[in-house]
Amino acid sequence: MKTTSKNNSWREKLHEVIYEADTPAGKAFDVVLLVIIFLSILFVMLESVKGLDAWIYDYMYAAEWVITILFTIEYILRIISIKKPTKYIFSFYGLIDFFSTIPLYVSFFLPGSGSALITVRALRLLRVFRILKVSRYIGESNKLIQALKDSRAKILVFLFAVLILCLVFGTAMYMIEGAESGFTNIPVSLYWCIVTLTTVGFGDIHPITPLGQFLASVIMILGYGVIAVPTGIVSAEYSKGEKNTSKSLSTNTQSCYHCHESKHVDGADYCHNCGYSLNREK
Amino acid sequence: MKTTSKNNSWREKLHEVIYEADTPAGKAFDVVLLVIIFLSILFVMLESVKGLDAWIYDYMYAAEWVITILFTIEYILRIISIKKPTKYIFSFYGLIDFFSTIPLYVSFFLPGSGSALITVRALRLLRVFRILKVSRYIGESNKLIQALKDSRAKILVFLFAVLILCLVFGTAMYMIEGAESGFTNIPVSLYWCIVTLTTVGFGDIHPITPLGQFLASVIMILGYGVIAVPTGIVSAEYSKGEKNTSKSLSTNTQSCYHCHESKHVDGADYCHNCGYSLNREK
Amino acid sequence: MKTTSKNNSWREKLHEVIYEADTPAGKAFDVVLLVIIFLSILFVMLESVKGLDAWIYDYMYAAEWVITILFTIEYILRIISIKKPTKYIFSFYGLIDFFSTIPLYVSFFLPGSGSALITVRALRLLRVFRILKVSRYIGESNKLIQALKDSRAKILVFLFAVLILCLVFGTAMYMIEGAESGFTNIPVSLYWCIVTLTTVGFGDIHPITPLGQFLASVIMILGYGVIAVPTGIVSAEYSKGEKNTSKSLSTNTQSCYHCHESKHVDGADYCHNCGYSLNREK
Amino acid sequence: MKTTSKNNSWREKLHEVIYEADTPAGKAFDVVLLVIIFLSILFVMLESVKGLDAWIYDYMYAAEWVITILFTIEYILRIISIKKPTKYIFSFYGLIDFFSTIPLYVSFFLPGSGSALITVRALRLLRVFRILKVSRYIGESNKLIQALKDSRAKILVFLFAVLILCLVFGTAMYMIEGAESGFTNIPVSLYWCIVTLTTVGFGDIHPITPLGQFLASVIMILGYGVIAVPTGIVSAEYSKGEKNTSKSLSTNTQSCYHCHESKHVDGADYCHNCGYSLNREK
Repeated sequence: MKTTSKNNSWREKLHEVIYEADTPAGKAFDVVLLVIIFLSILFVMLESVKGLDAWIYDYMYAAEWVITILFTIEYILRIISIKKPTKYIFSFYGLIDFFSTIPLYVSFFLPGSGSALITVRALRLLRVFRILKVSRYIGESNKLIQALKDSRAKILVFLFAVLILCLVFGTAMYMIEGAESGFTNIPVSLYWCIVTLTTVGFGDIHPITPLGQFLASVIMILGYGVIAVPTGIVSAEYSKGEKNTSKSLSTNTQSCYHCHESKHVDGADYCHNCGYSLNREK
Repeated sequence: MKTTSKNNSWREKLHEVIYEADTPAGKAFDVVLLVIIFLSILFVMLESVKGLDAWIYDYMYAAEWVITILFTIEYILRIISIKKPTKYIFSFYGLIDFFSTIPLYVSFFLPGSGSALITVRALRLLRVFRILKVSRYIGESNKLIQALKDSRAKILVFLFAVLILCLVFGTAMYMIEGAESGFTNIPVSLYWCIVTLTTVGFGDIHPITPLGQFLASVIMILGYGVIAVPTGIVSAEYSKGEKNTSKSLSTNTQSCYHCHESKHVDGADYCHNCGYSLNREK
Repeated sequence: MKTTSKNNSWREKLHEVIYEADTPAGKAFDVVLLVIIFLSILFVMLESVKGLDAWIYDYMYAAEWVITILFTIEYILRIISIKKPTKYIFSFYGLIDFFSTIPLYVSFFLPGSGSALITVRALRLLRVFRILKVSRYIGESNKLIQALKDSRAKILVFLFAVLILCLVFGTAMYMIEGAESGFTNIPVSLYWCIVTLTTVGFGDIHPITPLGQFLASVIMILGYGVIAVPTGIVSAEYSKGEKNTSKSLSTNTQSCYHCHESKHVDGADYCHNCGYSLNREK
Repeated sequence: MKTTSKNNSWREKLHEVIYEADTPAGKAFDVVLLVIIFLSILFVMLESVKGLDAWIYDYMYAAEWVITILFTIEYILRIISIKKPTKYIFSFYGLIDFFSTIPLYVSFFLPGSGSALITVRALRLLRVFRILKVSRYIGESNKLIQALKDSRAKILVFLFAVLILCLVFGTAMYMIEGAESGFTNIPVSLYWCIVTLTTVGFGDIHPITPLGQFLASVIMILGYGVIAVPTGIVSAEYSKGEKNTSKSLSTNTQSCYHCHESKHVDGADYCHNCGYSLNREK
């Protein structure tokens, strides 16, 4: 979308800086944005820590205002520099930008009860998704996302089967162990079963009867064997993707003028099928 | 199994709706069934939760009766619409349908001691397997099941080896740690060993002597290296399945004009079945 | 090693039954042996459980004597039926047979102090390895063992690197957390680090300082990324093994007499390269 | 780097023994060094254990002095035997050698406060990295390191995505559970989220509200599905590396008589480098 016409207005230039990352200015903008987002997230996290010196909270509150104002300016610039502002405003990142910027204004104009306000202020953490937008430029992530997308349907089917397993085993454990061991009801039993099958194992609830421990062992060994499935899927899917990529990259380059044989190795000067010079056709 | 003959009786139409999912009515039936099953499972789970308001239990009890009656009607329709009812009744899903429908009737006619009744009522959860029956239509699950079936023998051998490992290490831990650390007997030790080797790690039992902690470390590192085996198996098996699929796709392009044999390798000039030139038909 | 000569002595017949599994008698012998071993292991396990009724211990004690006598007879038969008894006696399975049979005799002739005796009696559990000997006949296990053997060197190098990581992180955690959190000394710290890196996570020891929790997070994420390595190795190794097997099975069968083209699909009657009949050469 | 010139000075011979492992003397030196390093690490670990007999500490203190003096001699020899000592001194292993040797001297000349001194003495553990230097000679580790290097970028992108997930879920858990369950602030919540997503699950902090347990279940199942990604990456990358190796092996069979170009694809009739017939040389 690089406009090469002569009368570039300032809006088009601004658009190039803010929305694209091909120019030095655009890249610098993204880097600065990334740093500010990281600082902002750090402040939100630290703000929740109790017991620090009072001046730290004051400093962070001031810093948050600076960041919020910077984000407000960025938000306004984004609206100004685009031809159809509504398209940006109601896009995923537009909404994230909006909801991650307003919390401080809300808490300023509505200094109400703390609990609800904390929830609002936590919205500032949404900025973390902005990082994803920037990291989109990292080439590797596209491959990863593709591999995940390709195996999404299979992983969903798999997780669905795991949930049914958990439901059946969870109910069985509820009936075997009962409330004394912490299996107070079926939802809690289901939670325990997920904790166990995924090999997390908090230990807040655990079987104490021999039969319960036996069934738990079965669940764990099952989980151990079952964890292989999503790994196998992604591995195969990713491996397939890799093969396609490397093939198309290395063999689609040259085609013999004489015999149309195309699968030449990189750097080949003569067709391996008929001996005709591959360079002549260039 | 779509019957195209003219005199379709209502029974054949009903069979199509209930047992198949090719017609819009059949699909709608399956979706409604799925929703009811989900609701039913939700009610069974919530019923086990103590401490909710009394009216919720009353509401759920009523809802369960409605669902039970719906399932009863479905069960009767299934028996009516099939030619050989006994084939359905004694099939896996027929038994699930029966045992997941009767619990409320049992608890109504036999308002006996609670404990045994809860076990009976939990049978309603068997409906969860009905979901599997419906999800059978999702294409991806077949591939998954195939990959698991292909690697079943290997995974069983593997789990068997893991169990022997657990037995040996469990006994060793029982003799090292003794009852003070919770290793009260060999079965409990075996349970702990499975908990550890599968990397679940509840922490309800854990070694406290230096030697026990050393052996536990060995078990954990072993489990860490050993978890690779089932994953590798399923991964390779699944990858193989994927390759076979793509292979048959790439070889289905050519079909012999003479003998209609179709699975020719790429670049074949003559039919491998009858020797007829494959190029002539182009 | 099936001897087809006429004058088979009873020793050779006995050898066939006891050491081989190709004849019906040999298979039956193995199955009976397997069942007795399983029972024996079950009794050793149950014996360690306290609080059962006294008659159960009496019954198990009697059953153990029966099993021990059966194993004694088997041991004697094995020595008699082989040409070079010393070869069996000092083999791995010969030693297991010996040490898993004598414990009861030892406890009978030396009714001494309990603690040392329990250790001796636990030797009966060595019989579990006998199961491996029988399971050797299951074809799948050979492939698995091969895959593990092929990737053994790599997994050892990997585990070695993991241990160095644990040592460095364990020492760091010891210095950060100190004795209050349970990190009482470096060996314990190392044990905790292995528990964490292998994602077992008992929770008996866990960091409480912010810096310790941060470092623990780093270790866990590292462990999460690092678990991929052995899996990838075994997966690739196993996949390679599978490919070699299937290739040699399906393509080495036929070779065209006319053009020496060899990669024919199974069941091909004519060469796909020159159209020459493949059956003529047979 | 084997110097075959006649006037080998003692410095060049020393260099061969200390820095290389091709000669018997060089190998012996490495093995002895490895044993001393292992002993040294063992002593550092044991020194941190409280409650042993006093004479053990005395013995270990003496042994540490012997080891330190041996390392000092080795360090001096390394500096003497190399042409550019500064290159060694400021290399990674040179710095490790220095910082792992001086702690005892520091504690001898500055018998100050214990806490700071322990940190200094722990530097001796740096010797563990020396083992890596020696294990470099094991061929397998190179392949492993290559596979990890190739998938480094992808694993970093993946871990980055996992951290964002943890941040979002951690904040949500902090707001749902609050301080009573141990989720005292967002950093602690983030720590818990990493503990859970990596399936470690210490259990020091765990959700107690139904909503918190539900969200925890989602996180765990996500972590279960997500662990597949790095495994799939390394597996595919390693598999690719293996294949490339075997590929170069299968294409090294033919070599052009005319231009000695060797990497021809299977079935090539003409050299892809010079167009010379490859069949003529057969």
